[in-house]
Amino acid sequence: MANSIIKSIDVQLFAVPLEEVLADAMHGDHTHFELLTVTITDADGLQGTGYTYTGGKGGRAIRALIEADLKPLLSCQDSAEIERLYSLMEYNIHYVGRGGIAAFAVSAVDIALWDLRCRRSAIALHQLAGNLNRKAKAYRGGIDLNFSLERLLENIQGYLDEGFKAVKIKVGKAQLSEDLARVKAVRELIGPDMPFMVDANYSMTVEQAIAASRAFQAYDILWFEEPTIPDDYTGFGRIAEATSIPLAMGENLHTIHEFGYAFEQAKLSYIQPDASNCGGITGWLAAARLANKYSIPVCSHGMQELHVSLVASQPNAGWVEVHSFPIDQYTLQPLVLEGGMAVAPESIGIGVEFDWDKLLPFKI
Amino acid sequence: MANSIIKSIDVQLFAVPLEEVLADAMHGDHTHFELLTVTITDADGLQGTGYTYTGGKGGRAIRALIEADLKPLLSCQDSAEIERLYSLMEYNIHYVGRGGIAAFAVSAVDIALWDLRCRRSAIALHQLAGNLNRKAKAYRGGIDLNFSLERLLENIQGYLDEGFKAVKIKVGKAQLSEDLARVKAVRELIGPDMPFMVDANYSMTVEQAIAASRAFQAYDILWFEEPTIPDDYTGFGRIAEATSIPLAMGENLHTIHEFGYAFEQAKLSYIQPDASNCGGITGWLAAARLANKYSIPVCSHGMQELHVSLVASQPNAGWVEVHSFPIDQYTLQPLVLEGGMAVAPESIGIGVEFDWDKLLPFKI
Ligand SMILES: [Mg+2]
Ligand SMILES: [Mg+2]
Repeated sequence: MANSIIKSIDVQLFAVPLEEVLADAMHGDHTHFELLTVTITDADGLQGTGYTYTGGKGGRAIRALIEADLKPLLSCQDSAEIERLYSLMEYNIHYVGRGGIAAFAVSAVDIALWDLRCRRSAIALHQLAGNLNRKAKAYRGGIDLNFSLERLLENIQGYLDEGFKAVKIKVGKAQLSEDLARVKAVRELIGPDMPFMVDANYSMTVEQAIAASRAFQAYDILWFEEPTIPDDYTGFGRIAEATSIPLAMGENLHTIHEFGYAFEQAKLSYIQPDASNCGGITGWLAAARLANKYSIPVCSHGMQELHVSLVASQPNAGWVEVHSFPIDQYTLQPLVLEGGMAVAPESIGIGVEFDWDKLLPFKI
Repeated sequence: MANSIIKSIDVQLFAVPLEEVLADAMHGDHTHFELLTVTITDADGLQGTGYTYTGGKGGRAIRALIEADLKPLLSCQDSAEIERLYSLMEYNIHYVGRGGIAAFAVSAVDIALWDLRCRRSAIALHQLAGNLNRKAKAYRGGIDLNFSLERLLENIQGYLDEGFKAVKIKVGKAQLSEDLARVKAVRELIGPDMPFMVDANYSMTVEQAIAASRAFQAYDILWFEEPTIPDDYTGFGRIAEATSIPLAMGENLHTIHEFGYAFEQAKLSYIQPDASNCGGITGWLAAARLANKYSIPVCSHGMQELHVSLVASQPNAGWVEVHSFPIDQYTLQPLVLEGGMAVAPESIGIGVEFDWDKLLPFKI
């Protein structure tokens, strides 16, 4: 039996509490996030760990899909054949797949397979993923829509104190005037030169988003993220045509086909795939390559501790989001910032090793 | 407390074996199907039961999503407010939703809510859903790609003996010549006038599908179903433009947005939403109304015992598929055929009451 034949697959689910309740325009209050890890052990004992996360819902369904449907499929397969296994998973659960829970499940498994691939070659992920750079531009994204203006500014000041040189806030308050007051105050705090993004979590109609875009333009916004529902690709296109604000999306796109629609129809300036929900590293790299064909910078959503290695390594590298779900605080190597840039780990593997003792109290 | 406040939600999962192993071009062998039922009990004791099904994978994940994430959301809500609860479910699990497992879970719950709505009004589903007709055209669809030609013809003859007046077979054999031999033989068996459809389960490239369409045309094919991947809406459009064969799809579309892309881009002649995976009766009716705007007949995929009431009641009624997963054989009222037409039940509720004793051996 080859060394790289899959011997066992271990799934763990954690509900990790947040320090404070966080809110955006569409998902309501976040009290915790779910972290699901998949550890694959090969015949020779080598192990790789992948993971996915949610905003607090769906974790048990992801676990059930892996336990009941992916495990039997992957058992005794060769872990080195990632691309074949990716297709196998995709088509085997296609009828209940094509995005959603299945995308999260496949992602976690795929990342574990990449961890194994890196470890078997004894190199770091950024080398295997593209090997162009180790550093990527980074920004801190807040889930701060429920913060008072005073608390919002304190929070942003905290990001600056931590060394961040670019920030993003949530928009989508009941009144556009409220959003504008917050955008204006943050721009005044951070000064005229710092990159500054806003994110509506798809809470606006196309018409509302056009009005908001026009109002935001006075404050030099680097991008307007998810102004309207991710499904309305041509609606994004209409916003882009009616205004001069750059648009971004990607955290809710789960298949390469959805990225294709976005590139063709949404007139995006940035794409933000999340390896935890777009098919793992295989899916993220496919989206990044497609973005490059359209000359669109590839950014990331969430799990900065992994995405730094992916974004930095690409020819069309954009921005790494440093997200408010602090997954990297539960690893042995929290994200490293240098001069505001995120630095990819040089350690062998995907560069994410969990602190299992720290996670244990949150296991469900 | 109002009578219609939700008191409890009971989920059951069954793996129901098929009489023989069935195969199509993309999903491999089917040895059983999964049936998941949701029974909602209101404060006054009135009960409604909904359900979904899969080709054998994903059932446990659907159950986990309902148990862990939908139950707490729906508890103590008013079951009469279906449209509000539908939106609540959709947005609450949006981050892991937008199709996939979540669509199946929401569908089962939604159908249970409609069963309650019908029972509370003491009327039959076909009346509440559209009330235009009780009978709908029906055809028998086989999952027969692995059958020898001889066995295929025996099987079709069996359908004719049961009273069916329209049939569909699978295509997508390794060689187009094999498909053609099967299509030719079935057409000769059923005679020149009987409606006859083919279904490739998205196994072909656009170019292969164009070649196949041209070859099939000699045999008067009513529609060519899922010639290529459901995600490639413009690819469907290219097939339609290059040939004269009518195209159909829908069993893999899970959101109203996906139906919108299909109507806008895929140049379909028929749409086949499945209430078990497109958001239940609420989602099916939304797809049917949108189809009507585009003058496209609304058909159905699977679970004939429910869809007969939906299809028959619509102004743009198309064809009810009588599927090879015999869910209706596990109900107290198997589908009724009259002169080849399917007849909607007049009983109060959705017209589907499970034979729990018959299902019990298959509970998992
Ligand atoms: Mg966002
Ligand atoms: Mg079909």
